[in-house]
Amino acid sequence: MIDKLMDKIDDRENPTVVGLDPTYDIIPETIKQSMIEKYGKTPKAAGQMIYSFNKSIIDGIYDLVPAVKLQVAMYEKYGIEGFRAYLKTTQYAKKKGMIVIGDIKRGDISSTAEAYAAHIGGIKIEDTYLDLWNEDAVTLNPYMGFDGIKPFIDPCNEYDKGLFILVKTSNPSGAEIQDLITDGKPVYEHVAGLVSQWGELAMGTRGYSKIGAVVGATYKEQGAALRKLMPHTFFLVPGYGAQGASGSDLKGYFDKDGRGCIVNSSRGIIAAYKKEARYGDHNFVDAAREAVIKMKLDLGENI
Amino acid sequence: MIDKLMDKIDDRENPTVVGLDPTYDIIPETIKQSMIEKYGKTPKAAGQMIYSFNKSIIDGIYDLVPAVKLQVAMYEKYGIEGFRAYLKTTQYAKKKGMIVIGDIKRGDISSTAEAYAAHIGGIKIEDTYLDLWNEDAVTLNPYMGFDGIKPFIDPCNEYDKGLFILVKTSNPSGAEIQDLITDGKPVYEHVAGLVSQWGELAMGTRGYSKIGAVVGATYKEQGAALRKLMPHTFFLVPGYGAQGASGSDLKGYFDKDGRGCIVNSSRGIIAAYKKEARYGDHNFVDAAREAVIKMKLDLGENI
Repeated sequence: MIDKLMDKIDDRENPTVVGLDPTYDIIPETIKQSMIEKYGKTPKAAGQMIYSFNKSIIDGIYDLVPAVKLQVAMYEKYGIEGFRAYLKTTQYAKKKGMIVIGDIKRGDISSTAEAYAAHIGGIKIEDTYLDLWNEDAVTLNPYMGFDGIKPFIDPCNEYDKGLFILVKTSNPSGAEIQDLITDGKPVYEHVAGLVSQWGELAMGTRGYSKIGAVVGATYKEQGAALRKLMPHTFFLVPGYGAQGASGSDLKGYFDKDGRGCIVNSSRGIIAAYKKEARYGDHNFVDAAREAVIKMKLDLGENI
Repeated sequence: MIDKLMDKIDDRENPTVVGLDPTYDIIPETIKQSMIEKYGKTPKAAGQMIYSFNKSIIDGIYDLVPAVKLQVAMYEKYGIEGFRAYLKTTQYAKKKGMIVIGDIKRGDISSTAEAYAAHIGGIKIEDTYLDLWNEDAVTLNPYMGFDGIKPFIDPCNEYDKGLFILVKTSNPSGAEIQDLITDGKPVYEHVAGLVSQWGELAMGTRGYSKIGAVVGATYKEQGAALRKLMPHTFFLVPGYGAQGASGSDLKGYFDKDGRGCIVNSSRGIIAAYKKEARYGDHNFVDAAREAVIKMKLDLGENI
């Protein structure tokens, strides 16, 4: 997966992943109204709104962008119908040739982690094997240590999938735990050491491991320091755009060849139509496409 | 929720929560075969197996036990059909008067945490409010700090729901991060301090907060120390039975009145029929009921 992701980034000349995290507010009124007319004010209507919105966004950007990241919370919120929209979206994005990252941030002890590993390892019902999720990689939470990661490693190697494990998150209060100093360095650097070490269990062929790290864009010095600490760990970088970071903050996150990370923007792309009145509801796809091009240029200037 | 949980524990004289975490292996062959005959080797068959199993277990124990805890991974594994089994189970347990804890261990930044808060806060589609999940409380992961917890606090107060936040987990590798020493004490004690402080935002009327902590049964000294550090924090305690802890390990987890915690057993109850040949597949409910009674006695002797 990590090789495929790197190839795709090279091909698109664009280390961007678009976050398909459609909150209710982001979905254009016209889509909302048409689904409510069909299905009432139901979770089914919400799920259909989300899928319809996502499909249009994917159609508008898939030739420019190597990957999409789905924040599962936005779907889980609507229960079964939300998950239906999630799965239809992952399937559609795969069909369009995109790499799909499930931003699930799961983390639990071994037997439970084994069950969560179905996201990338599929399920077996007697002798029947099924991959229900269509995800190339998922994000994980490290608070429970290696027990929660281990069951995902075999699927990474067997089915060529990937992981991105939280190291340093982009939100302000992440520091409450991640920045506690222990043995002269913050907790997140200890986690970085673990993730880097776990990464050796699933190396790709282009110098990076299938086990990557989530490193927020909003702490540029820390990001650059982590790049040096974790030379074989690919970074998934949230926090660009709506959360405040820009391309010039991210120079240190890339390696000397301008590789080693993929930068996520969610609201900055999918809600771009709300920022300028000239777009209006009907042009949300054009607005997203233009935002992608602008972000590509911004990153390109700075890598 | 915390008042209701404490009342229910008093009423049952039993601080036990049964973990409905049915792995495929735990489900009796007879149930598996009948669902495969009906639905083939499909996720639907798996979901139906799980619900059928859970329903029988609930029928067999609801008069003895105040609460059930569903490990969502075991359901999520089977995608939409798994979630359907999850929701049918939470609904059935509520109907039987049980407190329902969703063991979801979610944790993310603010806008995402808001979406996850639908688990206890419900959703709004225009002017229509819906509670899809039927959970009285959920477990959360603290790695991202207060940002990931805050959106859950209003629903706790508004709808009388609860949280259990991971502090010290029962698994061996939890120590990799949780036991790092910072300012002379382990990370999990820092987390304990935060959880205790957050707890003041949602106090119940019986001395405990609606914001509780997950404290594993497998580290008894630490558990007892945390009890003293967090006098108003109710503990959800995993790790009893299959993970090795017994009642005598847990004395220190309770307060001087024998309250302040609820102890989970999953495999020890729902897979009890597999431990003794005299039960056999058909008697899994009797085995679970007997295991509950044994556990109640074991805890009762030690509190």
